[in-house]
Amino acid sequence: MVKVGIIGATGYTGAELVRILSRHPEIELVALTSRHYAGEEMADVYPALTGYVASPCEDLTPEDVLERAEVVFIALPHGHAVKVAGRAVEMGVKVIDLGADLRFRDAAVYEEWYKVSHADHELAANAVYGLPEIHREAIRKARVVANPGCYPTSVILGLAPLLKAGYIDPATIIIDAKSGVSGAGREARVTSLFVECNENINPYGVAGHRHTPEIEQELSLLAGREVKVTFTPHLLPISRGILSTMYAALVRPATEGELRQVYRDFYAGEPFVHLLPRGTWPHTRWVYGSNNCHINLTVDGRTGRVVVASAIDNLTKGASGQAVQNFNLMCGFAESTALAAPGLCP
Amino acid sequence: MVKVGIIGATGYTGAELVRILSRHPEIELVALTSRHYAGEEMADVYPALTGYVASPCEDLTPEDVLERAEVVFIALPHGHAVKVAGRAVEMGVKVIDLGADLRFRDAAVYEEWYKVSHADHELAANAVYGLPEIHREAIRKARVVANPGCYPTSVILGLAPLLKAGYIDPATIIIDAKSGVSGAGREARVTSLFVECNENINPYGVAGHRHTPEIEQELSLLAGREVKVTFTPHLLPISRGILSTMYAALVRPATEGELRQVYRDFYAGEPFVHLLPRGTWPHTRWVYGSNNCHINLTVDGRTGRVVVASAIDNLTKGASGQAVQNFNLMCGFAESTALAAPGLCP
Amino acid sequence: MVKVGIIGATGYTGAELVRILSRHPEIELVALTSRHYAGEEMADVYPALTGYVASPCEDLTPEDVLERAEVVFIALPHGHAVKVAGRAVEMGVKVIDLGADLRFRDAAVYEEWYKVSHADHELAANAVYGLPEIHREAIRKARVVANPGCYPTSVILGLAPLLKAGYIDPATIIIDAKSGVSGAGREARVTSLFVECNENINPYGVAGHRHTPEIEQELSLLAGREVKVTFTPHLLPISRGILSTMYAALVRPATEGELRQVYRDFYAGEPFVHLLPRGTWPHTRWVYGSNNCHINLTVDGRTGRVVVASAIDNLTKGASGQAVQNFNLMCGFAESTALAAPGLCP
Amino acid sequence: MVKVGIIGATGYTGAELVRILSRHPEIELVALTSRHYAGEEMADVYPALTGYVASPCEDLTPEDVLERAEVVFIALPHGHAVKVAGRAVEMGVKVIDLGADLRFRDAAVYEEWYKVSHADHELAANAVYGLPEIHREAIRKARVVANPGCYPTSVILGLAPLLKAGYIDPATIIIDAKSGVSGAGREARVTSLFVECNENINPYGVAGHRHTPEIEQELSLLAGREVKVTFTPHLLPISRGILSTMYAALVRPATEGELRQVYRDFYAGEPFVHLLPRGTWPHTRWVYGSNNCHINLTVDGRTGRVVVASAIDNLTKGASGQAVQNFNLMCGFAESTALAAPGLCP
Repeated sequence: MVKVGIIGATGYTGAELVRILSRHPEIELVALTSRHYAGEEMADVYPALTGYVASPCEDLTPEDVLERAEVVFIALPHGHAVKVAGRAVEMGVKVIDLGADLRFRDAAVYEEWYKVSHADHELAANAVYGLPEIHREAIRKARVVANPGCYPTSVILGLAPLLKAGYIDPATIIIDAKSGVSGAGREARVTSLFVECNENINPYGVAGHRHTPEIEQELSLLAGREVKVTFTPHLLPISRGILSTMYAALVRPATEGELRQVYRDFYAGEPFVHLLPRGTWPHTRWVYGSNNCHINLTVDGRTGRVVVASAIDNLTKGASGQAVQNFNLMCGFAESTALAAPGLCP
Repeated sequence: MVKVGIIGATGYTGAELVRILSRHPEIELVALTSRHYAGEEMADVYPALTGYVASPCEDLTPEDVLERAEVVFIALPHGHAVKVAGRAVEMGVKVIDLGADLRFRDAAVYEEWYKVSHADHELAANAVYGLPEIHREAIRKARVVANPGCYPTSVILGLAPLLKAGYIDPATIIIDAKSGVSGAGREARVTSLFVECNENINPYGVAGHRHTPEIEQELSLLAGREVKVTFTPHLLPISRGILSTMYAALVRPATEGELRQVYRDFYAGEPFVHLLPRGTWPHTRWVYGSNNCHINLTVDGRTGRVVVASAIDNLTKGASGQAVQNFNLMCGFAESTALAAPGLCP
Repeated sequence: MVKVGIIGATGYTGAELVRILSRHPEIELVALTSRHYAGEEMADVYPALTGYVASPCEDLTPEDVLERAEVVFIALPHGHAVKVAGRAVEMGVKVIDLGADLRFRDAAVYEEWYKVSHADHELAANAVYGLPEIHREAIRKARVVANPGCYPTSVILGLAPLLKAGYIDPATIIIDAKSGVSGAGREARVTSLFVECNENINPYGVAGHRHTPEIEQELSLLAGREVKVTFTPHLLPISRGILSTMYAALVRPATEGELRQVYRDFYAGEPFVHLLPRGTWPHTRWVYGSNNCHINLTVDGRTGRVVVASAIDNLTKGASGQAVQNFNLMCGFAESTALAAPGLCP
Repeated sequence: MVKVGIIGATGYTGAELVRILSRHPEIELVALTSRHYAGEEMADVYPALTGYVASPCEDLTPEDVLERAEVVFIALPHGHAVKVAGRAVEMGVKVIDLGADLRFRDAAVYEEWYKVSHADHELAANAVYGLPEIHREAIRKARVVANPGCYPTSVILGLAPLLKAGYIDPATIIIDAKSGVSGAGREARVTSLFVECNENINPYGVAGHRHTPEIEQELSLLAGREVKVTFTPHLLPISRGILSTMYAALVRPATEGELRQVYRDFYAGEPFVHLLPRGTWPHTRWVYGSNNCHINLTVDGRTGRVVVASAIDNLTKGASGQAVQNFNLMCGFAESTALAAPGLCP
């Protein structure tokens, strides 16, 4: 049994970690931190857990958690992970950070987009970007994993095969992404109210969303050259789910069948990434509550572009499910432990 | 490995059976029938199953299925199960029927409310009503189990402790129930269209819904006398979930604390039924996609009534999850196999 | 042109007032108050109003507003209206309060349920309860109108004909009501977040909701004797709409046809209250965004009860639409001015 | 009073026409056709209309309707309008067709994309494309107006100023559009069921949707050269609303401020098209149930692209509202008659 702590257990990604880990046969929850709900049972904060989780929320310091746990998940807004992760390394505790603090190999990029200074550029440079389909071997050996953002997960998985194989012009990539409201977290804000989100869709953060440089870092690695993208996120009236629709110009004519083979090869053996049958476009509800990623694509012969769509659950494959997948890799468990389930559909 | 067949695999309850059974370690799916999708992979009809289920839909006769399977689930509209169940008994195949055909010990009641004649009153009389919290031992030995309706499951679990203990006047029971749209099935009907259901609630089947006599049969058994109820279902803009709010006059004054103890005693040791903490009222999303039932109650001292609310997922505890629970009991597996998971929340 | 001020213009009921009044040919908006959005255009706070409303939000004192306006709407949480209304009476300004402060003829009832003291019992005693279908003539002459609560509007309209005609036993009334989330207002609270409300229904305030005594005051007037009810509100995943389902024992046998005639007579000539055809149950989306109230009923012959359902839009007939209806009566305009429109459906 | 007939009154666009026209002071509804609901009152089919519309649905031939009416709206699926419109021209009846049959000046394009032959290429060539902001003067004089598709309305209004002014490279246009489910009509189809659409988003018709050539026809006219676009529609879990997000490369550097001025000039005086303030991105609920179109844009300086978003209600500005706008122009009424109202929000 691996002793696991979660810093920030009562936000949505924290609760999703607890939900997933409640089915993990090899772990023991030794610390769930929450400032707001300290002293309450986790199952009283999230009654869905009643009968499945019996752990209290505690107002612990990171140091407390690091002393109890062998692996720590950090499920806090950005800005809190660097110090904890640094100390964890010293203490021999493994860390998976679900925030943005350690996602950039070059911390200067983080500083530019997040408008804060980064206290440990070396730690950032050495953290591993936790997208198992791209960096699996590095994750296995990692002490500090930076769990990817939700949008970047869907985008990178959707475009990686084409970029790697050189089919598309990296200067032409346009990403139109749509996310459920849970991506905004559990903070009480007017813009996240039911009445504000229901029966609505709107773009936000156009041409300036912080996931842009994270996408570009990984796409550039795959393309072997610098990639800049236009990225537009939208807010959808669903709780969970991200659909990214991606556009790029083909550098040479290619058939849909040829490109499908590229994807099949790239994702051969992957437990969670599935290319859907020709003509069956991803639906976010098909991956609802699961760690799966569904992808499809076609060629728009009239304009010489390829259109790719990928769907994930932003809280699962886009956050906590992927974090557990990384955890499994880091601890030597079967990669799908606690994660092997179809989406909740219908 | 138990060989399992599902007659009617591509409706919502059929698909939910497949989803749940895809995680069951002791079964083998040997027959999935579908007239409409015969020849297609189940995972192509429900792409959420991609990577988790590799079984074709076939246009098989019931006889075909009974020859292949040791246990058969019937997930068809009412009117189809009697013949199949009768033949199954002859062939030594166990049957769990998710329809209404075998829910009434007195088939005449069925005939009156469903306006069809029943071909085998004796079979009906001997079938077991598959609500494990009430009839567990009979289910263990049953060859034919009639899986309860969704509304009756939520209502009976909500009222059983009070009726059994004699706290309420059976003549005063009023049930106001609210269901998600999946309860209407996957048939293409205008009344089930997104635009007709969204941003809406409406009562239907007022004072005449077919689940009324089923509720009354079981409540009468618990009360030890004939019970008649007023039952009003409503259609809600959610996919899954039933909330039943129930009202009855107390026959003698009682405190909330006293009644809470009655529930705790009645459901002691139950894996799926949970009394929530005082003042925490059931939310359907807390049982979303799970086999759990959440209950709470209070005393309205001003009027001498008790108010009880219970929440289930209509497709899981209200249909296919409960069917698998019954299956586990009938086959001697741990009752929670493939079912022990919290609701998908947030 | 009547000069109109709105105190609290940027909450949901305030914004709904502005929306409705934007189509009123006889008014001029002279003051929109907002502490939070002072200095912004109303149409920038609610961009739906772009091109239809050109008025700024101002951080005005009530006194400022009373000096500018001939009629003032107060759209604030309870606790703010008594002083303003008192001063308005002195200054000869008419007041319509959308909060609870002046809904009780006996302010002691208000104090008991709202847990605050009431500064002007006489003002309360003389205010008119603004439900035009019951108190039309008094409203016409009123200087201070207490606009009814959303739940009470739907409940009183649903039960008035039966109580007035003496068909039901007032001791047996049970009200199961369901409301959209806008009823909770625009305050940023976790319980009003999209992710908390979506795909969910839950009861709240069971046996203790503050609309209970308001319902009882008016039902008692209609019945000519004291009425106590069991009232259970529920939160629904819709933006707008209240459905109240009501149950009572008939004091003597009656046919559905006889009762329908009672309703037709009671509401003859009413512009906004409509008894639907036999068997057509109210759907909240049929009154969406409108000032209409739809009602239907049936007799449950098996139990001797009548079941009534009524649907309104909680922000319109349940708040701001009704306020404008009262305004029209108080000012001598045609009662339907700015309100005569069908619900937004489909 | 103009005598108006609607062929196909009980589909969603037909019902929306009736809803809007119920507030039009200058018309008389003389014929509402419906095969399915013949003999029923329109208000019984759409109870929202109770008290506002008293007209029966009749199973009339087009000839019957043309004899009664001075203006006829055709709200049928494509394939039915050519014959009716031809006969109407002979009889001196004006026609507004909400389907696709007459939207293409070159009927061969229609035949290619809709896979049917067109019976009257000359009629098609002479019909007027009913987008008032682009073709207002021609509409005023038209006898046959082809009402635009919902997606094309949102796209053309969004891109017209930039194309007309020559700011963008027509070869680089990518359109990512999202629509509510009412766009699929009221036909009972599995893909339109609540449970299939709720908590979901999916692309469909990728690189092949029939609105593509309609968009291209009008954008080509505006650009003065042939335009080909990549167009991807998505299905959203909302009843009403279309958001189109559009991408194109700037042919020369331009500031957001400069481009905003281009839009302000282009739409100066337009009653329904509104450029939102800088940084306020369109939300479909802000135009809910209204004839308004909200637009905003920005420059992605890092990639040299402009991003434009436009929002309409697909049933109103995207169909029936625009049809009434055209009707007003054709009959010499004020263009906003029956349409001047803000969106229903909150």
